[in-house]
Amino acid sequence: MSSGGKGGGAKAGGGAKGGGGGKKKEVKKETKLGMAYKKDDNFGEWYSEVVVNSEMIEYYDISGCYILRPWAMEIWELLKEFFDAEIKKLKLKPYYFPLFVTENVLQKEKDHIEGFAPEVAWVTKSGKSELEAPIAIRPTSETVMYPYFSKWIRSHRDLPLRCNQWCNVVRWEFSNPTPFIRSREFLWQEGHTAFATKEEADEEVLQILELYRRIYEEFLAVPVSKGRKSEMEKFAGGLYTTSVEAFIPNTGRGIQGATSHCLGQNFAKMFDITFENEKGAREMVWQNSWAYTTRSVILTPYLIENLLSVLHKLFFLIMYRFLQIGVMVMTHGDDKGLVLPPRVAPIQVIVIPVPYKDADTTAIKGACESAVYTLNESGFRADLDTRENYSPGWKYSHWEMKGVPLRIEIGPKDLANKQVRIVRRDNGAKVDIPVDNLVDEVKALLDDIQANLLKTAKEKRDACIEVIHTWDEFTIALNNKRLILAPWCDEEEVEKDVKTRTKGDLGAAKTLCTPFDQPELPEGTLCFASGKPAKKWSFWGRSY
Amino acid sequence: MSSGGKGGGAKAGGGAKGGGGGKKKEVKKETKLGMAYKKDDNFGEWYSEVVVNSEMIEYYDISGCYILRPWAMEIWELLKEFFDAEIKKLKLKPYYFPLFVTENVLQKEKDHIEGFAPEVAWVTKSGKSELEAPIAIRPTSETVMYPYFSKWIRSHRDLPLRCNQWCNVVRWEFSNPTPFIRSREFLWQEGHTAFATKEEADEEVLQILELYRRIYEEFLAVPVSKGRKSEMEKFAGGLYTTSVEAFIPNTGRGIQGATSHCLGQNFAKMFDITFENEKGAREMVWQNSWAYTTRSVILTPYLIENLLSVLHKLFFLIMYRFLQIGVMVMTHGDDKGLVLPPRVAPIQVIVIPVPYKDADTTAIKGACESAVYTLNESGFRADLDTRENYSPGWKYSHWEMKGVPLRIEIGPKDLANKQVRIVRRDNGAKVDIPVDNLVDEVKALLDDIQANLLKTAKEKRDACIEVIHTWDEFTIALNNKRLILAPWCDEEEVEKDVKTRTKGDLGAAKTLCTPFDQPELPEGTLCFASGKPAKKWSFWGRSY
Repeated sequence: MSSGGKGGGAKAGGGAKGGGGGKKKEVKKETKLGMAYKKDDNFGEWYSEVVVNSEMIEYYDISGCYILRPWAMEIWELLKEFFDAEIKKLKLKPYYFPLFVTENVLQKEKDHIEGFAPEVAWVTKSGKSELEAPIAIRPTSETVMYPYFSKWIRSHRDLPLRCNQWCNVVRWEFSNPTPFIRSREFLWQEGHTAFATKEEADEEVLQILELYRRIYEEFLAVPVSKGRKSEMEKFAGGLYTTSVEAFIPNTGRGIQGATSHCLGQNFAKMFDITFENEKGAREMVWQNSWAYTTRSVILTPYLIENLLSVLHKLFFLIMYRFLQIGVMVMTHGDDKGLVLPPRVAPIQVIVIPVPYKDADTTAIKGACESAVYTLNESGFRADLDTRENYSPGWKYSHWEMKGVPLRIEIGPKDLANKQVRIVRRDNGAKVDIPVDNLVDEVKALLDDIQANLLKTAKEKRDACIEVIHTWDEFTIALNNKRLILAPWCDEEEVEKDVKTRTKGDLGAAKTLCTPFDQPELPEGTLCFASGKPAKKWSFWGRSY
Repeated sequence: MSSGGKGGGAKAGGGAKGGGGGKKKEVKKETKLGMAYKKDDNFGEWYSEVVVNSEMIEYYDISGCYILRPWAMEIWELLKEFFDAEIKKLKLKPYYFPLFVTENVLQKEKDHIEGFAPEVAWVTKSGKSELEAPIAIRPTSETVMYPYFSKWIRSHRDLPLRCNQWCNVVRWEFSNPTPFIRSREFLWQEGHTAFATKEEADEEVLQILELYRRIYEEFLAVPVSKGRKSEMEKFAGGLYTTSVEAFIPNTGRGIQGATSHCLGQNFAKMFDITFENEKGAREMVWQNSWAYTTRSVILTPYLIENLLSVLHKLFFLIMYRFLQIGVMVMTHGDDKGLVLPPRVAPIQVIVIPVPYKDADTTAIKGACESAVYTLNESGFRADLDTRENYSPGWKYSHWEMKGVPLRIEIGPKDLANKQVRIVRRDNGAKVDIPVDNLVDEVKALLDDIQANLLKTAKEKRDACIEVIHTWDEFTIALNNKRLILAPWCDEEEVEKDVKTRTKGDLGAAKTLCTPFDQPELPEGTLCFASGKPAKKWSFWGRSY
């Protein structure tokens, strides 16, 4: 248990301290557990408090930087392990491409660069001297990779070509940074593939989207909607974009969880990525690209005027973003702290000895150790908290704060009855079970918690969905922070118009996606915004 | 087989091309296999050719940048998987700390920063305006992490604290870049741990060093010497440094493969990392840090004058360095290309159909497929090359270039005799074996190749070791590119003197390490350089 019991909320980054006495004070201060903010009262402060007190994040002494602690990294590793194994089954190969891209390569695909221009950071000077040409830090790697696709792909036998890289990318954003959710630099995975036919590309787009859905729903217990982005919201330069969309009831905002794009042949044309087919004729490849989350920001005059300064400043605001972890925290967390789905919990079961006065502490400790041993042997992630400087009550709060799904308490009475007490983090339910049934009961409980978290989250999310037909209904629903499902004529002008008409401090409303799962659209249904005949149902709302 | 048969040696990075016709030409050019350079004639050119033609590396259109292709990344992943699992058994936890460190924190440990000053890149300006304080890119993360160790460690119960991070670090070097061996930015793993007692720290230093030895000897089949660095060569600010040292016979240079440092209590003092022991008294922790390879360069006036320009330039010279892979290439490669040890070969067995005229190609292909299936089912990494646009002979050369340990050929005669022909990459030996013994024979052959590569490399390395006693013997051995084992008085002044007296175009000689495995040192043996009584045997030579 060297992870330590110091879920310190203090935001001051380390540095020299007043020595022993000062430390003692800090200990007192930091061992005060419990949350200062409530999720429903002050969501923003509550979120910042949870990610720090649960020991996922530590603030760093360079403003805006975060330290990612094991409680966050171990979750990320579990997700990465699953995803990497799945894409390798699809014959994806690991690559690493450079961080930098020249202006002329980046600009080769005009729509693409226009789409990213607002968030591209440029290096324009070397020391005091202008560079011959500015160099961009990749906001994504399409233009970095595709010249080499052109070089590597000759014949239909070289297809499909399937690259994936785990790397960092930079998107310059101006909104306030939020741990996991909004950061200038973040780690991600990006897949880039090329096929001989559109059919193969279309198929992969959905295979990957399904993997993203599984990460959210099966691992993080976060309900998402699979759907297609509007022309306005699709990936710049691509043919069409699919995504999984999550929703945060407390803020009434949608959040794009991950995207899987079919690029069509647009990049193939720009970068001359062709192959010789069976008949010896040249054809252009069909391409996809896909990644955990991709978002854009508004271009401000500040950015335009200060590209170089921006480049430097971003270094002092570096953060690693694991967006899906942030969504999970927001979805399941409560006023006691984090609530982790068992499949991603670094510790699934924490065992705590409860030695009342005059109890046989040795026997109790022994029972705890054997419980942990049994569970680990059965493949569960169980750990023991035997620290003697903390009371059982303090430990309960500490591990609740960290969101461990199950707590096992063993005291004299349990010892006597050959039982253990198991307490659920998600609903606080307590149950005493015979030691002999430990493994089966723990398995059943963890499975139930995993399912229950998704079910509860889905109910909360669904309760926010409001089906509307008119502009008045739309604006009311928007003000009520609903996830709006509306009949739409699918015209870009209309979406632009909606954005203009809803501009405000909270940001404009936009389409989140057109869900694949479409309700029936009765003949003659009209668009809520234009009054023209509706072509489809789409989700609308504000988003992160 | 979408990995493609185009081990193109062309160093021009992708970009627009002349379309179909141009491509055809390139195909012709690039399908020309075989190496232009020989390992013994022009080692440098030979090395560059191997890493490109084996498809480990592709040159990038920003000078000095490399693209790491699957043939390199898959080896790295195998090594990472082993090492990460082993350190997790030692209770190391995953962290991610920021890339940047402030000057005052970095300079807190004077010896340390002095040791790294020559290779630290500083950000001193934001746009046109001076920064309030320059910011350094981590050359290593001691000073980034330790203020937080101070914050997190309170009591003996918080110890040991064991952090590991996989990240990129930057060391500005001026020598010509060499793929894998010398680069400005590289990916590595760095471990940082804190203990209550020196005994625990000392024990871990050797546990980790043994893991590094296993990576080199058990996986990469590269012989290394475990030893202790001299005071002059030890980690700046640390107590003592241990390392595994490899040697490249062709260049007569040692290469530091990995280092495991005991930092003692020096950083604990600087960063106030103390804990309350059982008796309630404050003590300083004992610390270690360890990483795959760490090297330093000479500080040049150019660097001093151009720190900012250096910071920018390094971005255009970014490379990811997997030093251990480079050492492996240099050690085992031959004039046919790469030679991969089976334990790290992405493909261990390549199966190639050999359909002579009028042969039953369908039956041959079937036999090949079933061989691959059988081997994969038994846990071997086997693949099939059925491409019809390449002759069997071309495929032999291609997979030899890529260093695949075993090649299986199946032709009509083999089909008739229910046998396959197996050819070893390491020594070219051919053997026909009955299909029924396939799995056992392949296992035996791969084990033998793994052992044989290490044995051969060790013999070559040992043949370079020269035991000397006098300065004359030393200079002769140095000119003969030997790995010199010499009796030494262990005085820093003497080592400095040796460096001065051996300065030259090839670089000065220095101590590589004092091997743990010490030959007997007879009473009265004198130091080869100072004539004073010798205290130990040490390895000397030039190094990368």
